[in-house]
Amino acid sequence: MANLYYSQESHGPFETYDLGDFDLEDGGRIRGLKLAYATFGALAPNKDNAILFPTWYSGTSKSLERAYVGPGRALDPDKYFIILVNQIGNGLSSSPHNAPVPFNGPRFPRVRIADDVRAQHRLITEKFGIEKLELVLGGSMGAQQTYEWAVRFPDVVKRAAPIAGAAKTAPHNRLLVETFIEAIASDPALDGGWYADPHAAHRGLRRHAKLFATSGFTHNLFNAAGWRALGFSSVDDFVIGFVENHFIQQDPNNLILQASKWQENDVSRIASGDLTKALSRITAKTFVIAIEEDGFFPLKDIAFEQAFTPNSKLKRVSSQWGHLALFGVDPGYNAQIDSHLRELLQS
Amino acid sequence: MANLYYSQESHGPFETYDLGDFDLEDGGRIRGLKLAYATFGALAPNKDNAILFPTWYSGTSKSLERAYVGPGRALDPDKYFIILVNQIGNGLSSSPHNAPVPFNGPRFPRVRIADDVRAQHRLITEKFGIEKLELVLGGSMGAQQTYEWAVRFPDVVKRAAPIAGAAKTAPHNRLLVETFIEAIASDPALDGGWYADPHAAHRGLRRHAKLFATSGFTHNLFNAAGWRALGFSSVDDFVIGFVENHFIQQDPNNLILQASKWQENDVSRIASGDLTKALSRITAKTFVIAIEEDGFFPLKDIAFEQAFTPNSKLKRVSSQWGHLALFGVDPGYNAQIDSHLRELLQS
Repeated sequence: MANLYYSQESHGPFETYDLGDFDLEDGGRIRGLKLAYATFGALAPNKDNAILFPTWYSGTSKSLERAYVGPGRALDPDKYFIILVNQIGNGLSSSPHNAPVPFNGPRFPRVRIADDVRAQHRLITEKFGIEKLELVLGGSMGAQQTYEWAVRFPDVVKRAAPIAGAAKTAPHNRLLVETFIEAIASDPALDGGWYADPHAAHRGLRRHAKLFATSGFTHNLFNAAGWRALGFSSVDDFVIGFVENHFIQQDPNNLILQASKWQENDVSRIASGDLTKALSRITAKTFVIAIEEDGFFPLKDIAFEQAFTPNSKLKRVSSQWGHLALFGVDPGYNAQIDSHLRELLQS
Repeated sequence: MANLYYSQESHGPFETYDLGDFDLEDGGRIRGLKLAYATFGALAPNKDNAILFPTWYSGTSKSLERAYVGPGRALDPDKYFIILVNQIGNGLSSSPHNAPVPFNGPRFPRVRIADDVRAQHRLITEKFGIEKLELVLGGSMGAQQTYEWAVRFPDVVKRAAPIAGAAKTAPHNRLLVETFIEAIASDPALDGGWYADPHAAHRGLRRHAKLFATSGFTHNLFNAAGWRALGFSSVDDFVIGFVENHFIQQDPNNLILQASKWQENDVSRIASGDLTKALSRITAKTFVIAIEEDGFFPLKDIAFEQAFTPNSKLKRVSSQWGHLALFGVDPGYNAQIDSHLRELLQS
């Protein structure tokens, strides 16, 4: 049964770039790796206006477009050539749900953030001939990819803005993501990932959504009924209509693959586990941006990594939406983030 | 199959007091309600040294004894007559797992915090002839009972110390507890509560334990590997050996009943939903104690209710163990809490 969520109708228009067979950090291989991406604006003749923005967990290029891209925004297509790239496993790029037999579903190979970044590097060089990126930015798992970009390709990344994310997944964060995976995996309808109906395990996805909501938003959002701004009538109405609705349309194996990448995220692998040494490779001018109320990636943890990042500043934004302000639902957050990104782009 | 966790061997010595048939706030009735309790110290001839301490979620009188009672502690049996009382549904007092057919298991009636407090009031008056309590205190769900005591029986409670809890469950907290319930209820082995083997649904209990650990401890406890203080070897070793081990021994229906009480907790029912009016009934000298790092009951929420509590002070303690510092595992927390309790008792 096809999953219409991952269609051009729902998330397009997007293009795909075929990288052929792609060997992975953990030893697997994706046959015919395809990266899906959407671009906005025009690449300047001297190719000095390109911005790369990879997706967060469960997001697509469409999610990023809606929340961050537009005339008058910091990411203005009138000025920049903006590439929104879909991480491996997100459903638009090669993913468990669209991989050909026998490497399909739960047999999709293990992928790391570094694989995404290496594949994205090939996309920008081979497809667009871009050698320098004015800015790499991303939120949450997008921040993981941003850090990996800045560490792995310091000569390419001129500016970096990891938002509400980490260079290396902290122990608490790893445990939190484990609860997300377990919420899905515990649904008997998942059948070890061999479900025939892509929506069979919706109960597990709904439990996962509730966990996501509990840590992803702030206590204060619920105390102040801030969800009313989106037109919902009650906490349940909001959790079902906004959060469950977001996840039940997606493929459980895709989400589990992304979550496992999230857990394993660690830029220090390039330096044999030495995080300080890995971060010292960064030459980009970097704004490490924290959401002060973030329940996934606390300010303290973000500041810890920023302190080891050369040429970086810690920038703070505040939102009662917490981590999930990333979604672009809070005009206050959007204005703060645009202000930081403008400052970075103009520097 | 009997559950040996709830035995005198594991949690005794404890006594039980039989209240006969007990009508509940929500319309049900417990036939032959038994409250289990343990006492320490001797009741003074003029009965002016009694302290009441009800249990938290999943705790027993033995948990409280180990963490808070002893010579040299604020709750010193050489000075005070300390009654540790087990909340309804905790497995020692009347509970789903020990209730006679047909009101057993998932057919155990709905219970509210106010039912506990009314039953406890009968225990102290009928069994011990106590008319004034020097102090009522409790952590988490024990704080809920403490607030209910102070609101419902202002003439009995001379001092109150709700620790890391709320007079009325906040919307976020309610959602969090819903995720706990769903983690258990989603285990097919629960069979709607009709499991024959009390440990059949251990997978759900283990998931529940992991959620509890994720919000109950702080990010920093994991970052700093603070669990090493308890002798564990890794995060997994700690989560399994400490948190899963705590819950898998308990009865799922008992936990779900307690959790539903937690969700419905609301002192304002006595004042037709007016929380300020309900809290204004309090005459006890009250220390509202918050754990600054608490992920279940944030400082801000606790301070909000304290502000409406007459004759009260907000007292803060700090622990990287977060909410679950209540368990008594952090000597620093124990010293801080004893200091506040001594100040309150001496006033």
